Amino acid sequence: MSDSTTVRLEAFSDGVFAIAITLLVLEIKVPSASDLSQVSGLWHALAERWPSYVGFVASFFIVGVMWANHHALFEYIRRVDRRMLLANLFLLMGVSFLPYPTAVLAQNLANPATRTDATVFYGVTLVFTALTYNVVWWLGRYGQARLEPHVHETGLRMITRRYNMTLLGSLVATGFAFVNIWLSLVMHLSLYVLSARSEPLKERD
Amino acid sequence: MSDSTTVRLEAFSDGVFAIAITLLVLEIKVPSASDLSQVSGLWHALAERWPSYVGFVASFFIVGVMWANHHALFEYIRRVDRRMLLANLFLLMGVSFLPYPTAVLAQNLANPATRTDATVFYGVTLVFTALTYNVVWWLGRYGQARLEPHVHETGLRMITRRYNMTLLGSLVATGFAFVNIWLSLVMHLSLYVLSARSEPLKERD
Amino acid sequence: MSDSTTVRLEAFSDGVFAIAITLLVLEIKVPSASDLSQVSGLWHALAERWPSYVGFVASFFIVGVMWANHHALFEYIRRVDRRMLLANLFLLMGVSFLPYPTAVLAQNLANPATRTDATVFYGVTLVFTALTYNVVWWLGRYGQARLEPHVHETGLRMITRRYNMTLLGSLVATGFAFVNIWLSLVMHLSLYVLSARSEPLKERD
Amino acid sequence: MSDSTTVRLEAFSDGVFAIAITLLVLEIKVPSASDLSQVSGLWHALAERWPSYVGFVASFFIVGVMWANHHALFEYIRRVDRRMLLANLFLLMGVSFLPYPTAVLAQNLANPATRTDATVFYGVTLVFTALTYNVVWWLGRYGQARLEPHVHETGLRMITRRYNMTLLGSLVATGFAFVNIWLSLVMHLSLYVLSARSEPLKERD
Repeated sequence: MSDSTTVRLEAFSDGVFAIAITLLVLEIKVPSASDLSQVSGLWHALAERWPSYVGFVASFFIVGVMWANHHALFEYIRRVDRRMLLANLFLLMGVSFLPYPTAVLAQNLANPATRTDATVFYGVTLVFTALTYNVVWWLGRYGQARLEPHVHETGLRMITRRYNMTLLGSLVATGFAFVNIWLSLVMHLSLYVLSARSEPLKERD
Repeated sequence: MSDSTTVRLEAFSDGVFAIAITLLVLEIKVPSASDLSQVSGLWHALAERWPSYVGFVASFFIVGVMWANHHALFEYIRRVDRRMLLANLFLLMGVSFLPYPTAVLAQNLANPATRTDATVFYGVTLVFTALTYNVVWWLGRYGQARLEPHVHETGLRMITRRYNMTLLGSLVATGFAFVNIWLSLVMHLSLYVLSARSEPLKERD
Repeated sequence: MSDSTTVRLEAFSDGVFAIAITLLVLEIKVPSASDLSQVSGLWHALAERWPSYVGFVASFFIVGVMWANHHALFEYIRRVDRRMLLANLFLLMGVSFLPYPTAVLAQNLANPATRTDATVFYGVTLVFTALTYNVVWWLGRYGQARLEPHVHETGLRMITRRYNMTLLGSLVATGFAFVNIWLSLVMHLSLYVLSARSEPLKERD
Repeated sequence: MSDSTTVRLEAFSDGVFAIAITLLVLEIKVPSASDLSQVSGLWHALAERWPSYVGFVASFFIVGVMWANHHALFEYIRRVDRRMLLANLFLLMGVSFLPYPTAVLAQNLANPATRTDATVFYGVTLVFTALTYNVVWWLGRYGQARLEPHVHETGLRMITRRYNMTLLGSLVATGFAFVNIWLSLVMHLSLYVLSARSEPLKERD
C-alpha cells in the first residue's frame, strides 16, 4: 500500500531512531576505581549517577514516543518528494542530536549553578524537534507529497492540532526551566505521555 | 499475515537489540602503553581483561536469546495498540540499558569488595527485563492487542509459564549473588539456555 | 520489482548510513567540570564547542543527501553482482569513515595553524566518496549488473553528469581549502544541496 | 520464498554486521592538541595514525565480505531452527567482537615487541568466525533446518569446500604471524578477496 520510497525512508528513519535511543546508555559513565575509593561502596557510587539515569529514562521515553509518532505520521503519507526527505532529515538531525543535550543535562543536573541552562538547552532541542514534526506534517498535508487516500478530514485536523500543541507545550516547558527545572522536565515528559496516549494507531486490514 | 504495525515495531525492536548487542564490545578497553609496561607482554595485559570477556559473552548470549524470544513472542501477536507500544518501549529500555550493568560487572568482577553489589545490579536489570516480557505478553493475551488466530490454548499456557519461570528464576538468581556470584551468573545464563531450548519456533507455510 | 539481492544490499547500506549519521553526535564532547571553571557559565562552555556543531550539521546533511542519492541510484539497478557489492563496500567505507575527518575538522577549525589541513583531509574523504558513487553507477550502467527496464537514456545521462559534477566539484572545493576554508566548506555543502534538489525521485505505481 | 523466520534472522544479522562495521571508525583516535605540539603539523599527526587506518580498512573489508557471505549462505537456507539461531548468535558474537582485536592490532602494529601477539589475537578471532560459518552451514546442510529446494549438490559441495578452505587458511595465516605479521595480514585479506570473488550470487527471478 505504501510507496517503496516511503518504505525505505521509514527504514532509514527507524534505524536512526533505534541507534539514537540505544546510544543514550553510552553517556552513563561506569564508576572508576578512584570514584569507588571516595565513597562507601559501589551502591553509593552508582547512586551518585542519578542524574544520568534521569536523563537516560527521560530521553529514552521521549525518543520512543517520537518514534511511535513518526510511525503514525507516515501511516498517512503515501509518497514523499525531495522536500519532505530534507524536512525528515532535519527531524532526524534533532533526534540524533538528543544524546548530547541529555549528557549535558545529566552532567549538570546536580549543579545548582548550571542546571537551569542545561535544562533550557535540553528544551530547545525538543522545541527544534517538535518544529520539524510540524514541517514534515505540513508538507504531507499541503505539499507535493501525497497522503494516503480515504483519510478523514477530522483525523487530519486532530493530528495538526496535536503537533501544534506539542510545539507550543515544548516552548512553554522550556520557559518554565527558569522557574523550576523539575517542573520543566515533568512538563516535557507529560507532553509525550499525552501524545503517546491521544492517538490510536490507524488500523489496517 | 502480520499487521504492518507489527512489522515496523519488530523492525525498530530488532534495531535496538542489534545495536545493544553490538555496543557491548565498546566496553572492553584496549590495553594502553602504560598497561603494557606494568605486565610482561600483551597476552598478560589481554588476560587481565578477563572480566570484560565474561561480561561480553554473558550479555551477548542473554541479549541474543532475548531477541529470539521477542521474535517468537511477536509471532503470536497480530496487532499492537499504544499500550503495548509503551510496554515494548520499557522492554527495550531494559535491553539497551544492559551494556551499563555489564560494564559495571566487568569493572568489579575481580574486586572482592564490590563484586557482590555489581552482580546484584546486573541481576536487577535482568529481573526488570523479565518483568517487561511478562507485561508485553500479558497485554498480548488479555489486552486490546489481538493474537494471531489459530493459536492453541496449550501453546499460550506454555509461554505464560515460561515467562513466569524466567521472572521467578531471575529473582532467585539475583538473590544468590549474596551467596556466590559465580553461582548467580551461571543461574542467570542457565535460564536463557533453557529458554532458548524450550520453545520450538512456530512454523509457517 | 527489485531483486531480493538488491533488497538486502539496500538494507545493509541503509544500516551503515543510519549508524554513521547517528554516530556523529558522539564526537561532540560534553563540557567537563574543569571546562566550566575556566569560562563564565555553561552557555559559554557550550558556545566554545561551535566547531563541533558546524561539523555535526555539515556531515549530517552530507551523509543524509548521500543516503538519498544511494537510494535513488538503486532505484535504477535491478540486480547486483559481486563486483558491485565490492564497489558498494568501498562507498560505505567512505561514508562510515566520515565521522573521523569530521572530528578532526571540529578539533582544528578554531586553530589557524591546522585548520587548512583539516579541511583538506575532510575534502579528500568527500572526493573518495564521490569517486565510489561514480564507480558504482558505472558498474550499474556498463557492467554485469543490470538496470531496471524502461529507463530512459536521457535519465541515465543526467545521472552520469550529476555524479561527474559532484566528483569534479569536490576536487575543486578541496583545492579551495588552501584559499579559504569557509569557502571550501560552503562549496562542499552546496554540491549536496544542488544534488538533493536536482533529481526528482523516480515515481512508481 | 524465504520463511518469515529467516527474514527476521537476516534482518537482525544485517543490523549486527552494519553496526560492527560502522563502529570500527570509533577506534581511530583524533589527534589531540598535545599530540599536535609534539609533531610538525596535522599531517604528521594524522600520518602517525597509520596503524589505525590499516586496521580500519582490513576489518572493514573483512566484515563486508563476511556480510556478503552470510547473505549468500542464507539464500540457500529455507527455515531455521533454534539450534541454528544459536550457531548464528556465536557467528555474530565473533563479528561484533572484531572491533576489539582490530583496536588491539592498531595500538600495537608499530611496536615490534607486541605486534606479533596482537596479530595472533586478531587471527584467532578470524579463526573463530570461520569456524562458526562452518557450523551454521553444517547445520543448514545436515541439521533440522531445511535448505531451499532446487539446490544442486555441486553448489552445496562448492560452498562446503570454500568454508573449509577459509577456516584452514585462517589457521595457517594466524600461524604465519610468528614468521612475519605483514605476510599474515595479507594472507587473511587474500582469503576474503578470494571468497568474495569465487561465488556468484544465486540469481532469482
